[in-house]
Amino acid sequence: MKQVVLASYAKGNPKPSDFRIEDVPVPEAGAGEILLQTLYIAVDPLIRFSLDEKLLSGASRMELGATMVGPTVSKVVASNHPDYAPGDFVEGRTFWAEYAVVAPDRSDYRGPPRKLDPALAPVSTALGALGGPGQTAYEGVVNVGRLKAGETIVVSAAAGAVGSMAGQIAKALGARAVGIAGGEAKCRALLDLGFDAVADYKAPDFADQLKAALPEGADVYFENVGGDVTMAVLPLLKRGARMPMCGFIAYYGMGMEGPGPDHLPGFYRHIMSKGLEIKGFAGIFAGPKALEDIAGWMKEGKVRFPESVVEGIEAVPQAFSSVFSGHDHVGKLLVRVAPET
Amino acid sequence: MKQVVLASYAKGNPKPSDFRIEDVPVPEAGAGEILLQTLYIAVDPLIRFSLDEKLLSGASRMELGATMVGPTVSKVVASNHPDYAPGDFVEGRTFWAEYAVVAPDRSDYRGPPRKLDPALAPVSTALGALGGPGQTAYEGVVNVGRLKAGETIVVSAAAGAVGSMAGQIAKALGARAVGIAGGEAKCRALLDLGFDAVADYKAPDFADQLKAALPEGADVYFENVGGDVTMAVLPLLKRGARMPMCGFIAYYGMGMEGPGPDHLPGFYRHIMSKGLEIKGFAGIFAGPKALEDIAGWMKEGKVRFPESVVEGIEAVPQAFSSVFSGHDHVGKLLVRVAPET
Repeated sequence: MKQVVLASYAKGNPKPSDFRIEDVPVPEAGAGEILLQTLYIAVDPLIRFSLDEKLLSGASRMELGATMVGPTVSKVVASNHPDYAPGDFVEGRTFWAEYAVVAPDRSDYRGPPRKLDPALAPVSTALGALGGPGQTAYEGVVNVGRLKAGETIVVSAAAGAVGSMAGQIAKALGARAVGIAGGEAKCRALLDLGFDAVADYKAPDFADQLKAALPEGADVYFENVGGDVTMAVLPLLKRGARMPMCGFIAYYGMGMEGPGPDHLPGFYRHIMSKGLEIKGFAGIFAGPKALEDIAGWMKEGKVRFPESVVEGIEAVPQAFSSVFSGHDHVGKLLVRVAPET
Repeated sequence: MKQVVLASYAKGNPKPSDFRIEDVPVPEAGAGEILLQTLYIAVDPLIRFSLDEKLLSGASRMELGATMVGPTVSKVVASNHPDYAPGDFVEGRTFWAEYAVVAPDRSDYRGPPRKLDPALAPVSTALGALGGPGQTAYEGVVNVGRLKAGETIVVSAAAGAVGSMAGQIAKALGARAVGIAGGEAKCRALLDLGFDAVADYKAPDFADQLKAALPEGADVYFENVGGDVTMAVLPLLKRGARMPMCGFIAYYGMGMEGPGPDHLPGFYRHIMSKGLEIKGFAGIFAGPKALEDIAGWMKEGKVRFPESVVEGIEAVPQAFSSVFSGHDHVGKLLVRVAPET
């Protein structure tokens, strides 16, 4: 089988050449273990945290030569565990590899692989609307952001997997949703998804577009980005606005310090003068009510989850790198490693 | 009478020469108005926000030549209002002047002057433990910080009026309190007030002192400062820590940007990797329960409120400026303008 290993630690944005494709034997399931065939790999930007030679904080560092780890949907092909049978579909944190052996009883913090019902929804949605991105969007909008009907939310990286869900969940709750994305195609796609207004951060008149989209300001800022985009959003937040933060893609390639000037004084000034509330969250499962709500909204047609699919495990390094360099995909970027049947 | 007017807008830290003392006639109380003799003026750092020629955000700008406005304790000397009688003591937002005329029915957002009971506590405490600083400290520790018994709080600018109250309120709640202040004298004063440990930000081994004071990290960071102090605190916060922010004295003289490098990427990284919760608040009255609790703790001897008093209205410009340049006072800095009797 083929697998993707880390060839060199990332400097700034990850590059395809930071990874290497290797041919290795398919592993065998030992006692208590299951053998999974990988169907879909989600190229999750949070993986970037593990790719620094000198870790910046929190994440555990990947070793050079190690097989990359990340969220996948797989099919069970062999099982030595009573809870799993060949043919079962599962979602979990496995490897960037065509096959993986997992011991459900000694899995990592994400818990044992979660079994999926392919009759309920396409199994790939376990990496999207009903998986990490949907759960994250729900947590940020509902639990952290406490968005209410009639309020306005502005979402950065709105064309991404989490952002596009966040805007649609806001609409389903009866709020007004404004999306920030790069390029006309993505902005059009957001309007198609039901966003009330958009602002194109690659356009020269971005700041004016954003002001026009937020004539009365915003109650919630769903933060995925940081940097220039956030500097444009902050003056438009209302007094007492909430800022759920689930990422900062503009800073992923930096350490603790970026090139000057120092924007922290201005950030503090906004926090104080507006009584802003900021809370970081990630990798949080919002709970069963989130799954129920999202599944319900999808059935009512209120929430759609765009997927962009590229083919083959060899495509993973390029797909992962493209997340940081500003690609043209809308929604979740998935790599299909094998067909479902 | 004498009054203090704004002579020039502040550049960086306010200087005594930004103000001018003027001799003017004592004003007269018209219909519905009261004439107050100023007893105490509190030199409140938040006033700095109104002193920028080009306003940075939020505050309303002082006009050049206008009489400075701020929190005072006064005695009623003449009254054309049924709720106030000569001899009453009041706390409110009046002027840096020996006398002031106020119309209680058309007062600003802080409401009409609040009558004080001189038998309950010295009237100067209305500017301290039972006034803005006490209310602000309570709001930050109890309502925003949600500090619980057994947890640890670290307080910056801990020798200031708000900070010294915050640490003592934390102790009264059964928590562990660590204070950050500049200089050995202030640090000793904090230990005298009951803080469990201190770190001197002017000492060359400040970072080591802070680590030693927080061997298991902190659950709450009561933020008054920003800058280098905060950069040293952030790595010591626990997962899920709360950061009530009521000021950022390190940045008051700056606009939206300070000299590089940019510390915002690192700030974001801490927020995300630890799931920090940050909330700005100021000028908030925590409510009657706060007054009741603080008064109770003072009676039990659990909370003391150190005051440093300088004499005479001419001392106000120097006293106000000293707040920003790092003075040697502990607790609330008050100017006594006239004796109580």
